[in-house]
Amino acid sequence: MGKMSSATLILSCEDRKGLVAKISQFLFQRDANIIDLDEHVDKNAKMFFIRIEWELNGQANLTDDFMNEFKKLADGINANWDIKLSEDKKRLAVFVSKYDHCLLEILWRYRNKELHADIPLIISNHPDLEPLAKQYDIPYYCFPITKENKREQEKKELELLREHNIDTIILARYMQILTPDFISEYPNNIINIHHSFLPAFIGADPYKKAYERGVKLIGATSHYVTEELDEGPIIEQDVIRISHKDSLKDLIRKGRDLERLVLARAVDLHVNNRVLQHGKKTIIFE
Amino acid sequence: MGKMSSATLILSCEDRKGLVAKISQFLFQRDANIIDLDEHVDKNAKMFFIRIEWELNGQANLTDDFMNEFKKLADGINANWDIKLSEDKKRLAVFVSKYDHCLLEILWRYRNKELHADIPLIISNHPDLEPLAKQYDIPYYCFPITKENKREQEKKELELLREHNIDTIILARYMQILTPDFISEYPNNIINIHHSFLPAFIGADPYKKAYERGVKLIGATSHYVTEELDEGPIIEQDVIRISHKDSLKDLIRKGRDLERLVLARAVDLHVNNRVLQHGKKTIIFE
Amino acid sequence: MGKMSSATLILSCEDRKGLVAKISQFLFQRDANIIDLDEHVDKNAKMFFIRIEWELNGQANLTDDFMNEFKKLADGINANWDIKLSEDKKRLAVFVSKYDHCLLEILWRYRNKELHADIPLIISNHPDLEPLAKQYDIPYYCFPITKENKREQEKKELELLREHNIDTIILARYMQILTPDFISEYPNNIINIHHSFLPAFIGADPYKKAYERGVKLIGATSHYVTEELDEGPIIEQDVIRISHKDSLKDLIRKGRDLERLVLARAVDLHVNNRVLQHGKKTIIFE
Amino acid sequence: MGKMSSATLILSCEDRKGLVAKISQFLFQRDANIIDLDEHVDKNAKMFFIRIEWELNGQANLTDDFMNEFKKLADGINANWDIKLSEDKKRLAVFVSKYDHCLLEILWRYRNKELHADIPLIISNHPDLEPLAKQYDIPYYCFPITKENKREQEKKELELLREHNIDTIILARYMQILTPDFISEYPNNIINIHHSFLPAFIGADPYKKAYERGVKLIGATSHYVTEELDEGPIIEQDVIRISHKDSLKDLIRKGRDLERLVLARAVDLHVNNRVLQHGKKTIIFE
Repeated sequence: MGKMSSATLILSCEDRKGLVAKISQFLFQRDANIIDLDEHVDKNAKMFFIRIEWELNGQANLTDDFMNEFKKLADGINANWDIKLSEDKKRLAVFVSKYDHCLLEILWRYRNKELHADIPLIISNHPDLEPLAKQYDIPYYCFPITKENKREQEKKELELLREHNIDTIILARYMQILTPDFISEYPNNIINIHHSFLPAFIGADPYKKAYERGVKLIGATSHYVTEELDEGPIIEQDVIRISHKDSLKDLIRKGRDLERLVLARAVDLHVNNRVLQHGKKTIIFE
Repeated sequence: MGKMSSATLILSCEDRKGLVAKISQFLFQRDANIIDLDEHVDKNAKMFFIRIEWELNGQANLTDDFMNEFKKLADGINANWDIKLSEDKKRLAVFVSKYDHCLLEILWRYRNKELHADIPLIISNHPDLEPLAKQYDIPYYCFPITKENKREQEKKELELLREHNIDTIILARYMQILTPDFISEYPNNIINIHHSFLPAFIGADPYKKAYERGVKLIGATSHYVTEELDEGPIIEQDVIRISHKDSLKDLIRKGRDLERLVLARAVDLHVNNRVLQHGKKTIIFE
Repeated sequence: MGKMSSATLILSCEDRKGLVAKISQFLFQRDANIIDLDEHVDKNAKMFFIRIEWELNGQANLTDDFMNEFKKLADGINANWDIKLSEDKKRLAVFVSKYDHCLLEILWRYRNKELHADIPLIISNHPDLEPLAKQYDIPYYCFPITKENKREQEKKELELLREHNIDTIILARYMQILTPDFISEYPNNIINIHHSFLPAFIGADPYKKAYERGVKLIGATSHYVTEELDEGPIIEQDVIRISHKDSLKDLIRKGRDLERLVLARAVDLHVNNRVLQHGKKTIIFE
Repeated sequence: MGKMSSATLILSCEDRKGLVAKISQFLFQRDANIIDLDEHVDKNAKMFFIRIEWELNGQANLTDDFMNEFKKLADGINANWDIKLSEDKKRLAVFVSKYDHCLLEILWRYRNKELHADIPLIISNHPDLEPLAKQYDIPYYCFPITKENKREQEKKELELLREHNIDTIILARYMQILTPDFISEYPNNIINIHHSFLPAFIGADPYKKAYERGVKLIGATSHYVTEELDEGPIIEQDVIRISHKDSLKDLIRKGRDLERLVLARAVDLHVNNRVLQHGKKTIIFE
């Protein structure tokens, strides 16, 4: 992958002629070697989306000059954009409650260096998973939540997140609904795993609902969190086959494997700058 | 498969001890050789479901005696049941509108003798697919439907179905909603294909809704028709992966392949007596 | 899709700096609007692969000037390339023997205008599928093959193909092995469907071998034909689950659905200029 | 699942009439309530396979009488069979080398009580994974293997296995080939995970071979170990899609997720007495 000496741009703007030429020319003039370019035009929405990765090399380094000049280019086309060094890592906080499977999956990939990110802390509303956090030497903070103290606890959590320069929050089966105020502090940067094939079975107890409906496949969906419950842009989803032989307990057990992998794949896409959001949708640069 | 010389029982009743022994003993005493037995107990619902296939052989032939004695056994356990010779074929009427893909799939399997059923007629509310029916030498009846004439037309359709001894109706992308009166004439024997992963995107335009929601997989669901729209017991469903690159047109195109196969598999299970219904669920004996 | 007013380039060459800029600049200077660009660098092979689609518009039309100038660019980077108008269609000859499922799938998509290609003729070594060809009004030529007459018959076939300006041959379960001489006339343009998950079960009777080995999934593989049997670059493959309950007959039946779809997807990629070959591999621009 | 008060029989024998009746009658006479019965006849091999689970209840308890009488029945039909209490657990030894993903998956399921088995020890030819074993409080024995000491070390391993009453060995990416002598001590009870879709890419470096061949899917296969390398009866296999964008490193990374889940599913089937072997095949009672 050569992550150590490359940079990545993701950018979206209104579509117009010459965008690819303009951007690739900018890089070529700075002697950059493009090693991956993926571009998408949404003709309905009249939007342009691009992800480019190039090898750093003399002038193509992310100097202030480089960044300032690119800013001019981007301003000229009214773009949303982000450039980062491939070796720079997103800083994740993982939020959990009592289920350990999603957390364990993330920590295992983290320790294996398969997850290209830092995890400075884990936050929970229950003490149960502290031993697991300890095994991986990650600080664990417990903020029990009641109706009364929710806003106050969220404030403390936000302080902690700021202190640790967290840029992305992973809800790894965190069983609390975040307040709009909290969400607005991390726009487009909170990732949830919902244990159904959204938009089927929104809200509580999706496995129970799936069991009662008699579906032949169950799913899991990882999405960005917005104010509307389970309605944010979907990053990744997958399903597995079940049958009449499966009890509700079997659904929960089989679903765990799905949840783990779907969340892990979504987090992986996010930390490698492979996701752009537009309205209720995501563009995934694989 | 040895379909020519075997018989199949499907049976459901309240669960109790000794049901397998009772039924298998009945067959053994008549010198039957069981070649396939699949049994399921739903502990929640306290229900027993079984499918048995045996080779016909002297006393195990489906004589009046055999059937009367089995009826006594079944009455004793208050069972719903059906026994049929494997070579006996269900008689299907296929209902279509303008889309040909599901009809073509069924007709192709029918002609190849892969679909173990008879198709004495095709019914449509449009004339468009008559040429396709002709290619396969199947009578095609056109009953245009308006709000005003719906009940009257359905009556004519029902007469035709009775005339042809139809026992199962396949809605192969038939774009009309049947009246409860019509449905009640074929309880548990009308199979529909819905172009979404139910219960997501119930009702009209599921691909458009899927496109707008930004899902990463689209689905198709084949189910028995009940009075509640898209709420009947699900027989089979499947999904395929899509991406942000797919336009609504692409979803429709990719979905066609799913719809065809999911409907074909569901019809196949039904005509081979491999489906039992209980409440909103199906037990599938594969 | 807007296929009516766009053009597509596919190009491969040794990797070097500035290729994307050079090519996109070329298009931008001719006022082209790039609507899709996908690029891939194989670092191991040090190769660059790109597919670009742009809207035709004044200077970006494929005039002789445009083509000559692009040829200069391409010669300068020693590239293999092809540019075609999106509305131009590849001309396919379908080769069949006795099985109809793959042919039927292709013809159905052809008639539905889902397959963006022309099919001027069908060639077979058996007369069996002539009626199906007639239903779709496509000329059917029968060349029975024996060991003795194979080269002679192939010569006649090649004449016919030349007469009809065929550029791509689809082997839709054609049960003859083509001679190297024949293959060399259509380098990189003969597509086969093999009824196994290659490289498992190369050669004859893959379902029988799969049955005997007791695999839990069976597959189908569509690939370009080279002199080495079943060793050409793979375009598409897929699998389905089977179980111990499936007889050899069931494998063949289930496999048919796979073969049809895998071949159809591969042909679709090929006719839309979405495949580049390099050594034993393909780059697929989806 | 009600595992605490049930028993399970798996049995295979030559097929003949009345086997289901004979066995179910035996249970019924002892007042057993059959809660799951799955039966399969392989007509080619003329073999009968059955798995029955029943609730323990007075006479149906696995007393010496019960077992002796069932032995008579089984001897009369010349059957291979096994009866066990559902709460009885198989005793597993996990063999590993340096890769931790398969071991971690098994240990996680073990600790969650999702894996219905005991794991008294882990054996390795390298010290690397001892810390992981410690986290889960499982004794870890290291037997470095050279060409010279292989038989000697295997003897020590076998002693240890006997001491701990091990009945099943899991090769969780164990990078040594066991000698035939070792294998013969655990006939039908050694489970391996091979990182390819067998029989494709038998032997060493399957991901490298898959990468070079340019396949579009990679697989993993869990099978019983026999003297012939990678040729034992397959329990479970699965695949995932890859593309030309994936480097060899990506294949290895994606393959890890497959290997973990495929091995875990195979072990789960084995420990719950859901697998019967016959020749090179398995019958899986799901």
